[in-house]
Amino acid sequence: MFIHKQTLQYPSTPEKPDAVFARKLQEVIGGQYGEITVAMQYSFQAWNAHIPGKYRDLLFSTAAEEFGHIEMLATMVAQLLEKAPLGITEDAIQDDPAVAAIIGGTDLQQAIVSGAGARPVDSMGNPWSGSYVTASGNLLADMTSNVNAEMQGRIQVARLYHMTDDRGVKDLLGFLLARDTMHQNQWLAAAQELQKENLEQIPTPSNFPKKKEHEEFSYQAINFSDGANMADGSWASGDAPDGLGQFTYVDVPPEGVPMAPPTHPDARFYGTTEIPNIVEQTAGKIQEKMNRE
Amino acid sequence: MFIHKQTLQYPSTPEKPDAVFARKLQEVIGGQYGEITVAMQYSFQAWNAHIPGKYRDLLFSTAAEEFGHIEMLATMVAQLLEKAPLGITEDAIQDDPAVAAIIGGTDLQQAIVSGAGARPVDSMGNPWSGSYVTASGNLLADMTSNVNAEMQGRIQVARLYHMTDDRGVKDLLGFLLARDTMHQNQWLAAAQELQKENLEQIPTPSNFPKKKEHEEFSYQAINFSDGANMADGSWASGDAPDGLGQFTYVDVPPEGVPMAPPTHPDARFYGTTEIPNIVEQTAGKIQEKMNRE
Amino acid sequence: MFIHKQTLQYPSTPEKPDAVFARKLQEVIGGQYGEITVAMQYSFQAWNAHIPGKYRDLLFSTAAEEFGHIEMLATMVAQLLEKAPLGITEDAIQDDPAVAAIIGGTDLQQAIVSGAGARPVDSMGNPWSGSYVTASGNLLADMTSNVNAEMQGRIQVARLYHMTDDRGVKDLLGFLLARDTMHQNQWLAAAQELQKENLEQIPTPSNFPKKKEHEEFSYQAINFSDGANMADGSWASGDAPDGLGQFTYVDVPPEGVPMAPPTHPDARFYGTTEIPNIVEQTAGKIQEKMNRE
Amino acid sequence: MFIHKQTLQYPSTPEKPDAVFARKLQEVIGGQYGEITVAMQYSFQAWNAHIPGKYRDLLFSTAAEEFGHIEMLATMVAQLLEKAPLGITEDAIQDDPAVAAIIGGTDLQQAIVSGAGARPVDSMGNPWSGSYVTASGNLLADMTSNVNAEMQGRIQVARLYHMTDDRGVKDLLGFLLARDTMHQNQWLAAAQELQKENLEQIPTPSNFPKKKEHEEFSYQAINFSDGANMADGSWASGDAPDGLGQFTYVDVPPEGVPMAPPTHPDARFYGTTEIPNIVEQTAGKIQEKMNRE
Amino acid sequence: MFIHKQTLQYPSTPEKPDAVFARKLQEVIGGQYGEITVAMQYSFQAWNAHIPGKYRDLLFSTAAEEFGHIEMLATMVAQLLEKAPLGITEDAIQDDPAVAAIIGGTDLQQAIVSGAGARPVDSMGNPWSGSYVTASGNLLADMTSNVNAEMQGRIQVARLYHMTDDRGVKDLLGFLLARDTMHQNQWLAAAQELQKENLEQIPTPSNFPKKKEHEEFSYQAINFSDGANMADGSWASGDAPDGLGQFTYVDVPPEGVPMAPPTHPDARFYGTTEIPNIVEQTAGKIQEKMNRE
Amino acid sequence: MFIHKQTLQYPSTPEKPDAVFARKLQEVIGGQYGEITVAMQYSFQAWNAHIPGKYRDLLFSTAAEEFGHIEMLATMVAQLLEKAPLGITEDAIQDDPAVAAIIGGTDLQQAIVSGAGARPVDSMGNPWSGSYVTASGNLLADMTSNVNAEMQGRIQVARLYHMTDDRGVKDLLGFLLARDTMHQNQWLAAAQELQKENLEQIPTPSNFPKKKEHEEFSYQAINFSDGANMADGSWASGDAPDGLGQFTYVDVPPEGVPMAPPTHPDARFYGTTEIPNIVEQTAGKIQEKMNRE
Repeated sequence: MFIHKQTLQYPSTPEKPDAVFARKLQEVIGGQYGEITVAMQYSFQAWNAHIPGKYRDLLFSTAAEEFGHIEMLATMVAQLLEKAPLGITEDAIQDDPAVAAIIGGTDLQQAIVSGAGARPVDSMGNPWSGSYVTASGNLLADMTSNVNAEMQGRIQVARLYHMTDDRGVKDLLGFLLARDTMHQNQWLAAAQELQKENLEQIPTPSNFPKKKEHEEFSYQAINFSDGANMADGSWASGDAPDGLGQFTYVDVPPEGVPMAPPTHPDARFYGTTEIPNIVEQTAGKIQEKMNRE
Repeated sequence: MFIHKQTLQYPSTPEKPDAVFARKLQEVIGGQYGEITVAMQYSFQAWNAHIPGKYRDLLFSTAAEEFGHIEMLATMVAQLLEKAPLGITEDAIQDDPAVAAIIGGTDLQQAIVSGAGARPVDSMGNPWSGSYVTASGNLLADMTSNVNAEMQGRIQVARLYHMTDDRGVKDLLGFLLARDTMHQNQWLAAAQELQKENLEQIPTPSNFPKKKEHEEFSYQAINFSDGANMADGSWASGDAPDGLGQFTYVDVPPEGVPMAPPTHPDARFYGTTEIPNIVEQTAGKIQEKMNRE
Repeated sequence: MFIHKQTLQYPSTPEKPDAVFARKLQEVIGGQYGEITVAMQYSFQAWNAHIPGKYRDLLFSTAAEEFGHIEMLATMVAQLLEKAPLGITEDAIQDDPAVAAIIGGTDLQQAIVSGAGARPVDSMGNPWSGSYVTASGNLLADMTSNVNAEMQGRIQVARLYHMTDDRGVKDLLGFLLARDTMHQNQWLAAAQELQKENLEQIPTPSNFPKKKEHEEFSYQAINFSDGANMADGSWASGDAPDGLGQFTYVDVPPEGVPMAPPTHPDARFYGTTEIPNIVEQTAGKIQEKMNRE
Repeated sequence: MFIHKQTLQYPSTPEKPDAVFARKLQEVIGGQYGEITVAMQYSFQAWNAHIPGKYRDLLFSTAAEEFGHIEMLATMVAQLLEKAPLGITEDAIQDDPAVAAIIGGTDLQQAIVSGAGARPVDSMGNPWSGSYVTASGNLLADMTSNVNAEMQGRIQVARLYHMTDDRGVKDLLGFLLARDTMHQNQWLAAAQELQKENLEQIPTPSNFPKKKEHEEFSYQAINFSDGANMADGSWASGDAPDGLGQFTYVDVPPEGVPMAPPTHPDARFYGTTEIPNIVEQTAGKIQEKMNRE
Repeated sequence: MFIHKQTLQYPSTPEKPDAVFARKLQEVIGGQYGEITVAMQYSFQAWNAHIPGKYRDLLFSTAAEEFGHIEMLATMVAQLLEKAPLGITEDAIQDDPAVAAIIGGTDLQQAIVSGAGARPVDSMGNPWSGSYVTASGNLLADMTSNVNAEMQGRIQVARLYHMTDDRGVKDLLGFLLARDTMHQNQWLAAAQELQKENLEQIPTPSNFPKKKEHEEFSYQAINFSDGANMADGSWASGDAPDGLGQFTYVDVPPEGVPMAPPTHPDARFYGTTEIPNIVEQTAGKIQEKMNRE
Repeated sequence: MFIHKQTLQYPSTPEKPDAVFARKLQEVIGGQYGEITVAMQYSFQAWNAHIPGKYRDLLFSTAAEEFGHIEMLATMVAQLLEKAPLGITEDAIQDDPAVAAIIGGTDLQQAIVSGAGARPVDSMGNPWSGSYVTASGNLLADMTSNVNAEMQGRIQVARLYHMTDDRGVKDLLGFLLARDTMHQNQWLAAAQELQKENLEQIPTPSNFPKKKEHEEFSYQAINFSDGANMADGSWASGDAPDGLGQFTYVDVPPEGVPMAPPTHPDARFYGTTEIPNIVEQTAGKIQEKMNRE
């Protein structure tokens, strides 16, 4: 159950309107790594968790916080758009290059569709998609996915920080950067704890029967490009991070095996085959049926 | 530049056709974490890399290998579909429940659209999307994204392994599981090496000016749910994984700050405001203009 | 700000697993008119509201309730999937047509991707999309959109009610049907109240300058099909619902006006025009430039 | 059957080209509430109607009119783009800020892809989607959806009206505003008539067996936010609009019921569980099978 | 302008309901090459045509016919679904494998969302997308696109023909196959006529200045795979179809040129570079600014 | 199997950065007819080919070349973005209209998401979609699809050629135009060869039993619009291109046949029917069941 409170975790008010930046903020609301993604991702991971206790509690807690972050950003966008220009006459542009920039750079749907309000889309106008969410039920994989989401998200917020001079906006972004630091750290801590408690190990899934995997290929760095430096990395020799194998290096991919011959599905799929007359001959029964039915 | 060779890295031939499993394999071809995703993701990371040498070489090499994996799976799908039933008469169903299962479970577009061939879609028919790709230019974040992709991918292949009895299919999946083991390990190794070489640190990005971030919130575990066990985790006390701070725990979220008052954009957006008559009064000039233009 | 509580508004436990119904429930989780849509829609309407007080309070409250409904449905799905068959051997199918039905009808990604868990998608596997959300800033239009969403949603839940025999599932659906009754009624009440308080009127937007609209067409029922009964409806004569005009009926569409002549954009767009040689002649300057640049 | 006539319902010619406005008009062609949506929505509602006569005739007629509206807007866009700048040299920008605005604000695909022509996309370039269409077979719900579509559409046209000075464009928009007034009114009239004729009632669907719905929750306004004013609305007390119940108000959500315990699906889904060793123990048979198969 | 008539071009009534086939027909309604695609594609090509007369008339005419084809298929789907099973009890499945097949193979949204009606989606439930439409303004390219669309469409209808025993359905499909034959032929005829009338030539666009194209690569078949038979085709020697060049064959791709060195964008994008300390040094001004702002 | 080489087929370096053009180039990377589409399309056609030898070799070869073209364009984009402005202060705009243009016209995600790198999206930011790919298994249809793709692609590259003054960019585009000339020619040659070798004929599929098609409609040009010139084309009389029939012309569409009466699905779908009381009467058993279950 979710209870809403009409306060914000942190102040979210700009110094002045900025319709172009309002569009840029959409990226961290409704983009691939925006707040809707993490709120939904942590929620689905919690709802699908197979283990009660601290991990699930952490997921529920962080999900709820992220829903509040969507709210802070959405209200910021609305304020940045409060004096957004509606439309531009030729005169205005002639006089003022700044206005010209604003015309080009705004989210047209923030004007035409939502009437100067935020939307569940990214900075290029793509609607948020459920396909952004990762929730596999395997907590080590999912915590790693969460670390990834927080890293990408923090990079985007850091980039946005440098794209504005507005102190109100920068203040909010500074807060979000701090929470992203926390969340990167917490998911890393959780991933380590899962391994320490022997709940999951690398590689994930770790209890897939070893002898079913073709282990001769499990620690082999094969170079499919011609970059001379691939052999220099720690992935080409020494112990693998999972502690279960030793990396080896293969400079040129082995010859490989022949492809299976092309397939010949039912003639009624009308694919092109090398002996088209075969339809009437070998597959005469089918052709006959085709004519009959 | 890419050069194609008409051989496969590993044999890819099923014992017998299985149209339902052909659909399931689409998940690891064209799904969020399928081979198209990793092939494209590693390619774009390489093309956008800002640093030559071993990391970029590794990206190019693995990208090329993954393109070959799409090929192995696509040819497997074509063979699994070689005897796919085209359509079913009533008689057939009456006699054979197995046929009934096949009707329901197949990918209809593998029949109607591609004529018994693989497609760039997932197991539910969603077309592969460029939004699955992560390539930020920050290698630590991107290597973490790669670890995530390989973890999710290996879990899916492991699940698929148990969904078939076909020895040919299981043989290929066993090979892919091994390569996923390698790739999980190599991206983990690369992420560690980036930090060891001081190219990137956690949290990412690590050279964002510390004093711009509101550091009082950077290591604070705040419980936005009511789960009693959140405090038990390593994320609630002790050293944070980035080695830069100490976790603290806050049991109940602070009160927060008041939301900013609602916005009042230009009357010509026709939003609902508390004093609609204001349009004629305060904003008289606009209304006048609205009537004039 | 959102606070999460680890209880549910109403019990959500099935009598027994049912993987096919688990897929059907996805429609009301992540479909066009599922709970994610209404939760997000009411949230964005509240965040973009230009007027404080009861309407916005109602939006915030209902949004929070709907987030809790996603949770009830997601946990129901996880339980319905608890004993989902992983994969099927030939033997199983041969013996049991019920198993055959289950194979065909399940959501393959609930198995392969989420490992027997709910996902932010609909019953055909389409990921939830931000384009499902309507939030225009005009409260009368948006409340009408909300009525529509609750109507479509309640119809879908009612249909689902008849598709299962499970008493646990039916109990939850009976609760959701009741809440949909409430929400249909509340948005209708709010739409009426907005008009009573003179904040908005029909047609929306009501303060668009009347003389700018071509009023001669504003109440004219023109028959563009050849159905003889269109004239029988209340839309063909009598007072219009907005109380501002009288319907009239036009049996056959007027002749219309000629289309403007086809356009001739810049020759460098390489469109097909009736005098292609004109490129070298009239537009010689462009062609010359094309050769020069 | 549809017959096309090479005339337009109303003149559609701009005074002069305007590539930025050409992009904005895409919203009402291919946006969520553009003309493609309503043309398709009314068509599918008619094709799926279960009742012949005036309602279906009205749907067919309005659908056909809307296809003509797409045409008027598409030819308008082509004319607005007739002199669209193809590309810009640095010199041009240096001299003319107006050109700068145009570069930024145009739809790049109207130039690169369609060569100065309209496209089935919205103003941010999202392709029109079949998911915009609502057609449930329940006419009261669908007519309400139609009212919603016409309201949102008329608001968007009204906003666009203020974003241009071109008299030719304004003339067309003035006509479309009038038709939207008609269509809002007609669907409202039809919704009322359905109820008057006792074909449908509120709440929809109205013949769902009352005793199956948990009626104690059907008229209960429960406040899930902390807004003090929610109780002030007509939705918190008095008769509900459906005439079947009385609203009551609950200030704080009841405690709720415990969530069901987390699920434990088949070990071969490789989800994380609290007792991972159980795989070898309790579920020994599965593990054994896993090793065997 | 479009006028609707309440008759069909050809009878469209099945012998009996078939919910599985109703789903399959969705492919040719709302799939990539379904009737919605061609109706929209020909319409947009006509609206964007730069040349009046026979080509545009042909486009308008065929567009209107295709809208009627959507109608025939949609009404067929509704009839196929008329007795669609709503839901299935366990008993039913136990007794009847045919019912099991139906459960698995139906479009769940045809039941839950549209209440036994057609939808603007394909056979796997993907909503129709505006991105399926091709309309470039170049008529030779677009007519070729139309030939392609009619070819793919006719193949799909032919496949569907063999997937049913219903004489009513087969009768309609036989009619559509004939119209597809006509449309393939008409677009081929139009493509030939454009060239005969010297309006367009191959390669398209044909008036791009030859000397701007690197002509030494214009007729060179370069083998990027290792298939020995590529040299055997007519594309490897002799006259090219455009009549402007002679094919030559290159067995192994030339060495190529070095890639440009990796880029180093602004440090505030936080990409990984080989000398991270350079941020404080060479780019000291930026870092200083970063700390200041 | 694919092997990568760290060289490019042709030089790809701009004279100077141009962030606006970097966005435009995305169209031919990740657009409907960009290089990702053709690389994937030719790959899937090869993997699904039912015939070994020269056609499949040609597909594999061209697919591999196109993957290299993605690479050339992606590295070009990265270089064009190398000095992309990160964000803009008010001062900058005031002084420089060129900067204003850049702000508006750039791809915001190239900055915020990829940190000055290319992405698998088009020029309006839509992610590349697997639905762009055509691979039917019928080689004549697919080769025609390939001609179409190369035509649309070459038109787009030609348009882009005129949108920049940069000699480095123009040099690359001149090379790509030449390869598009080759590829248009080669697919045309292959389509002709397939017919010459009697593997496929027009109309496709050509071995669908003629007597099953309603041949009286196969060569009939029916005018569904009122354009007087449709009769003037070669599609209205004379031999059809397939050599199997003679075109005839029908000036006005025949009357058509009556639509089937509206359907009446199960009452539990809650559709609107003309006799709603029938639910209690005729369908009493269902209603009774509805109350019981």
